[in-house]
Amino acid sequence: MTVVGVIGGGQLARMMIGPAVELGLDFRVLAEVPGSSAALAATAVGDYRDVQTVREFARGVDVITFDHEHVPSDVIAALIADGVAVHPAAHALQFAQDKLLMREKLGSLGMPMPDWARAENAADVDAFLSAHGGRVVAKTPRGGYDGKGVKVITAADEIAEWLDLGPVLLEELVDFSRELASLVARNANGEVQAWPVVETVQKDGVCAEVILPAPHLSDRVRDVVAQMSIDIANAIDATGVLAIEMFHTTDDRVLINELAMRPHNSGHVTMEGSVTGQFEQHLRAVANMPLGSTESRDEWAVMINVLGGMDVAKYEHTARHPRVKLHNYGKEPRAGRKVGHVTGTGSDLAAVLAETRAVAAIFQ
Amino acid sequence: MTVVGVIGGGQLARMMIGPAVELGLDFRVLAEVPGSSAALAATAVGDYRDVQTVREFARGVDVITFDHEHVPSDVIAALIADGVAVHPAAHALQFAQDKLLMREKLGSLGMPMPDWARAENAADVDAFLSAHGGRVVAKTPRGGYDGKGVKVITAADEIAEWLDLGPVLLEELVDFSRELASLVARNANGEVQAWPVVETVQKDGVCAEVILPAPHLSDRVRDVVAQMSIDIANAIDATGVLAIEMFHTTDDRVLINELAMRPHNSGHVTMEGSVTGQFEQHLRAVANMPLGSTESRDEWAVMINVLGGMDVAKYEHTARHPRVKLHNYGKEPRAGRKVGHVTGTGSDLAAVLAETRAVAAIFQ
Repeated sequence: MTVVGVIGGGQLARMMIGPAVELGLDFRVLAEVPGSSAALAATAVGDYRDVQTVREFARGVDVITFDHEHVPSDVIAALIADGVAVHPAAHALQFAQDKLLMREKLGSLGMPMPDWARAENAADVDAFLSAHGGRVVAKTPRGGYDGKGVKVITAADEIAEWLDLGPVLLEELVDFSRELASLVARNANGEVQAWPVVETVQKDGVCAEVILPAPHLSDRVRDVVAQMSIDIANAIDATGVLAIEMFHTTDDRVLINELAMRPHNSGHVTMEGSVTGQFEQHLRAVANMPLGSTESRDEWAVMINVLGGMDVAKYEHTARHPRVKLHNYGKEPRAGRKVGHVTGTGSDLAAVLAETRAVAAIFQ
Repeated sequence: MTVVGVIGGGQLARMMIGPAVELGLDFRVLAEVPGSSAALAATAVGDYRDVQTVREFARGVDVITFDHEHVPSDVIAALIADGVAVHPAAHALQFAQDKLLMREKLGSLGMPMPDWARAENAADVDAFLSAHGGRVVAKTPRGGYDGKGVKVITAADEIAEWLDLGPVLLEELVDFSRELASLVARNANGEVQAWPVVETVQKDGVCAEVILPAPHLSDRVRDVVAQMSIDIANAIDATGVLAIEMFHTTDDRVLINELAMRPHNSGHVTMEGSVTGQFEQHLRAVANMPLGSTESRDEWAVMINVLGGMDVAKYEHTARHPRVKLHNYGKEPRAGRKVGHVTGTGSDLAAVLAETRAVAAIFQ
């Protein structure tokens, strides 16, 4: 039996549990704290930055993969030295860990991106600001997520503290009409499968709604994005799920915003929306099994995040919406926290949106 | 958070794990042995016939339900005395535990059944044999499953050992063209939902293939079975999933063969085939949540059992069938043992059958 270990006990590890069970994998989680989202599968609790903790967890594990991208490279190197397979590998993962490396790599591949620059100091920031209308996006290269580590700035002093710590990524403000995401999975044999491109709706920098497939997408953009996603996965030797977040511009171009190298919020919709959901596909990919079909099961699928709290006692109010599926991350309520999501499917997008939103509203 | 405990660590408990996680339930299993199919969720290992073992397991549990029907009534009574909700309740469960009680109850409800009799001795058997062409089915009232405890007999001495232990159920041999099953779920509020009737194909007394929905079913039989199933669930106060196995006769009648009061092999097909699979629905029902939709997600879904062994190393041979879903029970191989199942879905039944059988054949 293949033993898969996940570093990190958040909702991504949690949502791998069901597919791991059905695939017949021995599935283990190294959680940060007791009572984590993925506690049911946690065989260890400890600090993922501590080499010994992670090595101990990985003993007897065939493949290590991740719930998040923050595992330090020396920890990954120690696992490899111990003979454990790690997917994605460090040389791929770095492009999701460091946004400057990502921009450099995508640039070398000729991928469409916003204008960007590496700012080492205030002078670099001033130069980029004046070349881009006096208002740009600044990002810390590492550690940002869900709107953290991202700022729209008009002056260098707004990111003085970041510059003290190291280089900062600057990007032009893109005039986009909406955001898209493309998910692909790739296994160690090099088999790659892309899901149809989804539309993602962000609120306050956090993913709020996802529609599979992205409505009104031109055939040209659909084909360009699919090929681009597969090319990137191959070029960086990604294994597991790779998520590519994009801006869709008002002149029908796509510009790559971010990469994530794990199951991603924009892919939760595939759990019901696709023949193979992203969590099953990630496990298949990292365990080097053949990938499942990414064909859609319905004309439309809509995923809406539940933030704050998702009290099981409120399920009774969902009775009028028996087609909408509930996903509860088992987390304590906290304002703004992602605690679950709901997914609707069907042939009429307006109806699916209305019904899925109605269920999400019950919890919010 | 609702805490659901399952007595029994087989594949039925195992396949509840994924849905329990997604619903945000705290899910616990009392397994018979270490390394059971449902080991991931096992919080206790012990004998389900031992009152103290089960009481200890149930401490802190809100609702107890079952992986099998063999839990003694004194154990259930002790749980109820401790204030634990038990679903299905003992007064319902008895009709799945004792086939004579089942026949008596269904008779009192006027449900269509084969001719049957309670045989206390050889004379009773002889009388039923001569009234039914000299060849009948004999069943032990308790403990039978998958063809065990069932015999076709032509003389009383073939079941002399059974008669020594107590009364035996005798049934006429039915001239049926095929077997059907109807699954319903009912919660403590009395909400009932039926899935479409499925066709089940048995081999050597063990379920081999299931087709959702049963092909070529007349509207009349479809409606009769749906109403009958709901009526039975209400009449016996079933909670959770109730499976009704039926013979479909050559003259287009249905006769009830067996009842099961838990998720059932004939319902595995609903995991992919229906908006709500039987394992999620069972959990919703026993936790008294609103039931999910039982609508089909595709025109056809086909489930085929994998017997003997389901080696993960063979998954590579499934690469040409990326739409067929694998369910591996994590069991050691043994001839004839149910170790997993595979499910195909689509709009062309012949194609789905061929593809699903091709994947099942990889493991057999």
